[in-house]
Amino acid sequence: MIPNAYRSLHCNAVRSEHIGQTVTLCGWVNSARDHGGVIFIDLRDREGLTQVVFRPEENAELAAQSHTLRDEDVLQITGKVAARLKGTENAKLGTGDVEIVATECKILNKADVLPFQLDRELSNEDMRMKYRYLDLRRERMSKNIRTRHKITNAARNYLDGAGFIEVETPILSNPTPEGARDFLVPARLNPGKFYALPQAPQQYKQLMMVAGLERYFQIARCFRDEDLRADRQPEFTQIDIEASFIQRDDIVNLVEGLLVSMFKAGTGRDIPAPFPCMTYQEAMDRYGSDKPDTRYGNEIVDMADVFANSGFKIFRTTIENGGVVRAINAKGFAGITTGQMIRLNEIATQAGMKVKQLAFIKVERDANGVLEYKSPLWKFFSEDEQKALIAKLGVEENDIVFFYAGTWQEACDILGRVRVEIANMTQLTKDSTALNFLWVVDFPLLAQDAETQSWVAVHHPFTRPKTEDIPLMEAGEYAKVRAEAYDVVLNGYELGGGSIRIHEKDLQAKLFSVLGVNEEEQAHKFGHILDAFRFGAPPHGGLALGLDRIAMLVSGEDSIREVIAFPKNNKGSDLMTDSPTQIDFKTLREIYIQSTYKEKKPEAAAVA
Amino acid sequence: MIPNAYRSLHCNAVRSEHIGQTVTLCGWVNSARDHGGVIFIDLRDREGLTQVVFRPEENAELAAQSHTLRDEDVLQITGKVAARLKGTENAKLGTGDVEIVATECKILNKADVLPFQLDRELSNEDMRMKYRYLDLRRERMSKNIRTRHKITNAARNYLDGAGFIEVETPILSNPTPEGARDFLVPARLNPGKFYALPQAPQQYKQLMMVAGLERYFQIARCFRDEDLRADRQPEFTQIDIEASFIQRDDIVNLVEGLLVSMFKAGTGRDIPAPFPCMTYQEAMDRYGSDKPDTRYGNEIVDMADVFANSGFKIFRTTIENGGVVRAINAKGFAGITTGQMIRLNEIATQAGMKVKQLAFIKVERDANGVLEYKSPLWKFFSEDEQKALIAKLGVEENDIVFFYAGTWQEACDILGRVRVEIANMTQLTKDSTALNFLWVVDFPLLAQDAETQSWVAVHHPFTRPKTEDIPLMEAGEYAKVRAEAYDVVLNGYELGGGSIRIHEKDLQAKLFSVLGVNEEEQAHKFGHILDAFRFGAPPHGGLALGLDRIAMLVSGEDSIREVIAFPKNNKGSDLMTDSPTQIDFKTLREIYIQSTYKEKKPEAAAVA
Repeated sequence: MIPNAYRSLHCNAVRSEHIGQTVTLCGWVNSARDHGGVIFIDLRDREGLTQVVFRPEENAELAAQSHTLRDEDVLQITGKVAARLKGTENAKLGTGDVEIVATECKILNKADVLPFQLDRELSNEDMRMKYRYLDLRRERMSKNIRTRHKITNAARNYLDGAGFIEVETPILSNPTPEGARDFLVPARLNPGKFYALPQAPQQYKQLMMVAGLERYFQIARCFRDEDLRADRQPEFTQIDIEASFIQRDDIVNLVEGLLVSMFKAGTGRDIPAPFPCMTYQEAMDRYGSDKPDTRYGNEIVDMADVFANSGFKIFRTTIENGGVVRAINAKGFAGITTGQMIRLNEIATQAGMKVKQLAFIKVERDANGVLEYKSPLWKFFSEDEQKALIAKLGVEENDIVFFYAGTWQEACDILGRVRVEIANMTQLTKDSTALNFLWVVDFPLLAQDAETQSWVAVHHPFTRPKTEDIPLMEAGEYAKVRAEAYDVVLNGYELGGGSIRIHEKDLQAKLFSVLGVNEEEQAHKFGHILDAFRFGAPPHGGLALGLDRIAMLVSGEDSIREVIAFPKNNKGSDLMTDSPTQIDFKTLREIYIQSTYKEKKPEAAAVA
Repeated sequence: MIPNAYRSLHCNAVRSEHIGQTVTLCGWVNSARDHGGVIFIDLRDREGLTQVVFRPEENAELAAQSHTLRDEDVLQITGKVAARLKGTENAKLGTGDVEIVATECKILNKADVLPFQLDRELSNEDMRMKYRYLDLRRERMSKNIRTRHKITNAARNYLDGAGFIEVETPILSNPTPEGARDFLVPARLNPGKFYALPQAPQQYKQLMMVAGLERYFQIARCFRDEDLRADRQPEFTQIDIEASFIQRDDIVNLVEGLLVSMFKAGTGRDIPAPFPCMTYQEAMDRYGSDKPDTRYGNEIVDMADVFANSGFKIFRTTIENGGVVRAINAKGFAGITTGQMIRLNEIATQAGMKVKQLAFIKVERDANGVLEYKSPLWKFFSEDEQKALIAKLGVEENDIVFFYAGTWQEACDILGRVRVEIANMTQLTKDSTALNFLWVVDFPLLAQDAETQSWVAVHHPFTRPKTEDIPLMEAGEYAKVRAEAYDVVLNGYELGGGSIRIHEKDLQAKLFSVLGVNEEEQAHKFGHILDAFRFGAPPHGGLALGLDRIAMLVSGEDSIREVIAFPKNNKGSDLMTDSPTQIDFKTLREIYIQSTYKEKKPEAAAVA
């Protein structure tokens, strides 16, 4: 649509080669400057900036009028392209060698003074959200939106090229059994009944495999009605993938190619593949996390061989009772402040620490130049233990070592969180441009509910156990059964995950019996899927990637809100459109519901 | 993912060049035949069929086992590619020259007997929907789903190439002012408040223009809670487009290129562009419809000049009183049956006919070979009128002419419907492969509500009047003001429509005042848009195309249900997943609503 009746060029397209030509541009007044009575403006459109000058000697009337131009006025400018005066070029701009000497200026729309300046960062999130259409004018935001488009496009082209077919599945869907909370939609044509917005197209994607589609994908909107702590949105987008007649390695290769093409499109960088791969067990042992950030070390080290026979009773008995003693050597962090130490202990407590504070050893040189091991517990260790510890953890001057003794799970949870927080405190990744992709595989299939002692599916009840672990399942060794499940991780963020699914009736029945789902429940909750599996279900599996998070990481942002055009705030509200909103009684009656919410009246409360 | 551990080739890829090679295929038993004790199966995967034969001389055990194979079993077959015996080739199959002599057969999954046969058309829609995952295995349905993917892809690539950026807008959105009924979603985090699912991303797309995005598109899911008569779905997909600094012709050119590329991708056909263009006035006058099917004639003809001074009083006075007398000559349809005549009159009555039946003239030769004008009114016409009528309508033997006298709107509505029905009855488009694209432009901006006499927006209140008609608006001649609105039509279906929007505050205020929307209402209903328009809104406009309908027409289907993977039935239900569903009281209480629907108990009703 360029050129058209409105413009002959984009603002960023005006170059030296156009000098002497008459061009017409459209855009917004990015800034206006008065140099000795002559007005210069930067005209901005989607593609960039061009300097426009209103010279009285060219058009006196226009030059006079130009003094009324204000930031963000929308203009159509016609003029001659001229070289800028020597010394006034702007090397930062692609159009910095030229300017337009205006001969005509049509004000397409005047702008009021904006509620905030576009060239300054705004810390007031509410203002940004209320005027999102202005916030999106900022270069950073506009770039984020375009980058998201580019990587989404790259994903689609890649998957299309790999023979995947995009299929739209219903948004007016059914509740997710055993999922998070669903958003519900009253179904007027089915009085008293409700649709649910999908948490994922899980059932549809598996049914499409039964339908013989073989390779399906969808850039799918998904919904979860959760409390919006942290960086969550009630609706989010995932790249949903499912394929038949495939094994884990097929999905892994496919997804690596997909991510390589998306990051290339978004950042221009060539990501090396294949990605490293590690088991869940190894990830938890070394990093205390199933989505480890491998850009830095500070790994968790098992100290069992050092303390198995220790005179320090707490460590020894923990090990004797099947627990673990593990440690992290935070290199060069002996200068930790009291505040940081308090914060670390808070985090450890949130992560499940049973004792009051983390045991530590701080290694610093004293006034006399002697290396000191400052620690409440150093003195309890034998000399051999001390030496072994120093050797095993590579302890040096200015290090600080943190310990945890307890269950394996506690040690993972606590030291995993502590490891990340130390990295934050010491800014280990501050200037890092590393993109550490990683596969984590062989997740446990089942987990035991601490309260009820019953077994639940870690992923979902259609996830396939590893073939070699099926005998373990049959032997009742549920905790040891690993799943054909896999996650792909980048710099400590889970980008996505999936699994090979069960396609055999008998294995599915066995798993449901382990999960304590009786036949009636199976029919009620999973009836149509189990039905479908009777009619020739192929072996299949898939994966879903979080598009918002990938877009965030590609754009170098800290929050998915920065890569969503119109996000909700952390109360699930859109301040721009004032959504959600009140609905009148009559409209609700027509869809056979009424609100049960009684607004608390302050007066009434006061009386009571 | 081909080849992989499961297969070395797709079923449709096995050709003469592979003869002698060992291959591995996966798929479903499409059919099994016993020829003199030897089992032949057609193995089907997504790409096609291959014949597999189990020769006892090759592998006696396998040949014995092959007798147990049943339709839709899922197999992995390994074998040698061999030429088929002379005379047994199947020219209809790409793989018809070869067969696989099986050396291994792994049954990946057994299939129960299907509830219906895949190779027969099934008239029971409920069965198709309940077992949609089987219905989608049919070649026709699988092709439809793939065609939809192809044209969607073509649309995206075309728009991306034209500099359009796809942006996802919220599904958890706000009610549409003055739209159809919204689907509502209780917002638990905002007790007593509701999101609405979007009927279109109209507000967001305009706000993105204010944000300076310049060219936006989205393949957007939209929702309308309407009674689902005819071929409607509660959720549907539109290609949503908006651009800045453009005029109608820019959109027209863009959309023509878009449709050309989609039809090329879906049908392989080259659609000529530019498309014909006609005004709303002309479309209504000639076809009685703003989405005329121009594949056939039977046009509506104005008879004012014939009957303005007629002795036939009804016609004359209708014209004198500002009404119209119009006719359609249904060529060669004099043999209309009584049943067809009744049906035509029913349709005319539904369309607003005030009299009991359509006046007509049937032209047939009598037993003596004399041309007869059979009609209740022929005798009332003067000889000049008769001649003029014959000349003007080109009346010949075996024609039948239908008349309507009344208001312009009635004549359009009634004769427009009659014209289409005559075309159906005479199967005018039966073997037509024509794709008659058409632009209809210059719609009226405003329409007067018959009851309240107030003016309402024909499109929506942001639609721009034609610049040359703004003086008419200022003069209060609202009925004459035309909008910068346009629809694109194919073979009588509206594919989509849009408009250039108002971007000036003053013009918008004027239009709101015509519509009787006071300032308070404006602020309440359109506040954020009006706000946005104060901060530098560029001239902009756009269009939305119905993707479901385009997919339907590309695939040669009669219903959009055939091109939606998981559609709802005409009660808004998905019979496969049993959606919508009942939700327990407690879950509803958590989102601050309760159902007001009381199921009617038959006993109670009997007692009352």
